[in-house]
Amino acid sequence: MAELPPPLLPHTVRRFPADLVETDQIAAEVPVALVFNGISHAVMMATPQDLEAFALGFALSEGILDSVADCYGIEVQSSGDACEVQLEVSSRCFQRLKERRRSLAGRTGCGVCGIDSLSALDLEPTPMPPQAWAAQLQATTVLQALQAMPPLQVLNAACGSLHAAGWATPDGVLTDVLEDVGRHNALDKLLGQLAQAGRLGEPGFVVMSSRASYELVRKCARLNVVALATISAPTALAIRIADTAGLQLWGLCRDPRAVRYT
Amino acid sequence: MAELPPPLLPHTVRRFPADLVETDQIAAEVPVALVFNGISHAVMMATPQDLEAFALGFALSEGILDSVADCYGIEVQSSGDACEVQLEVSSRCFQRLKERRRSLAGRTGCGVCGIDSLSALDLEPTPMPPQAWAAQLQATTVLQALQAMPPLQVLNAACGSLHAAGWATPDGVLTDVLEDVGRHNALDKLLGQLAQAGRLGEPGFVVMSSRASYELVRKCARLNVVALATISAPTALAIRIADTAGLQLWGLCRDPRAVRYT
Repeated sequence: MAELPPPLLPHTVRRFPADLVETDQIAAEVPVALVFNGISHAVMMATPQDLEAFALGFALSEGILDSVADCYGIEVQSSGDACEVQLEVSSRCFQRLKERRRSLAGRTGCGVCGIDSLSALDLEPTPMPPQAWAAQLQATTVLQALQAMPPLQVLNAACGSLHAAGWATPDGVLTDVLEDVGRHNALDKLLGQLAQAGRLGEPGFVVMSSRASYELVRKCARLNVVALATISAPTALAIRIADTAGLQLWGLCRDPRAVRYT
Repeated sequence: MAELPPPLLPHTVRRFPADLVETDQIAAEVPVALVFNGISHAVMMATPQDLEAFALGFALSEGILDSVADCYGIEVQSSGDACEVQLEVSSRCFQRLKERRRSLAGRTGCGVCGIDSLSALDLEPTPMPPQAWAAQLQATTVLQALQAMPPLQVLNAACGSLHAAGWATPDGVLTDVLEDVGRHNALDKLLGQLAQAGRLGEPGFVVMSSRASYELVRKCARLNVVALATISAPTALAIRIADTAGLQLWGLCRDPRAVRYT
């Protein structure tokens, strides 16, 4: 296990209106390269913590791996202010990734994960198999899980600028919380941690400290997560994709209020 | 001028704890392809509004164009739920873009605008020429500009999930506010609007409703914007890049409090 850069860094600031010079804890934002069978695939700016879970979650939620069994090993390396995660993956998944990359030759990509033309966008997820428990999910249960999150947002308590993704059982018990400067990264860390523990597919739902953008919904839908609750509002595209995928989408979850969008 | 998709969409929701069925206004999140001299370069998920300014601002803040004079024409098209912005640019800038894209051949990119390996990251901005007025910028002036922003966040008032980027004069008068689902997009729209009006380079500073990530600082620094104030906190990398570029960075600006980081 490599020694990672610290997730928080002290920095001298001037605080107004008192005009005091003090030391604040600031969230690190570190480039993390994801390398599959020796080929560097993507660089994300992330909080340097839980990087094995992050890499595994990303590989699964972006459809690079079909299941945890496709991942033979993960090694995290760090040099200076950057990190690299080496994944050894099945030759089937690696071949597919190489072909996908070949078909994208010459693209720079920006914004939507390497997509550079509208025709390459995939906004039609496959509907998920329904899960019976989800039909019973109540606003109070969703809010119970979200209310349990702040005490577990340890880094955010110190610096105030990190997102969190959590996992809750159908009765609203929060079991896992992962933090990151990026909301997509926080979700990937959570999904990766569940995958590492063999818990992907168990009944439960995801809670997030952020808005619901379409990418969060897509990542959940790819891994058969049937419900997502966020503190802020969703976008219209997130709602549409949730509808298509059969994902139950909650937003503006601020006790005692919550809004169900699908 | 093409008819754009609406920036807000009505959607039927169930609101708890009252369990009322109501209609909410939801922020659209629409794929916008940026096309340079006929070649599709990037797709961003954005609020379909101010797309000419968005495309021009993106092209300038990402270093595709050196100045507004490199842009000969911008045309916005829309089909269904997607938009395309066609930019006609100077052959010099287009050649450079093509070469940059060739050197990226085979990359898919993710997270950091098409970068797929650590060696391709550019985290060392050129220092900006200092502007005398900025040394006099006070916390009260910064807060005055930020406080003037909410009444001008028209879309956000209806849907609650949009970021805003604003421009303020050295004495804190807010002159422009642009909104988007993405904070980088909101900033690009603002920078593009200033460029269109020939106002880039005038004394003034940027205010944003978001956190300060490193990309916002980089975009500002590329266009010689010497001060940036955000409502939430910056990341450590944003501070480091602001230091290198000579950008004055304010965060956690919540009247009467504000923190100066560089």
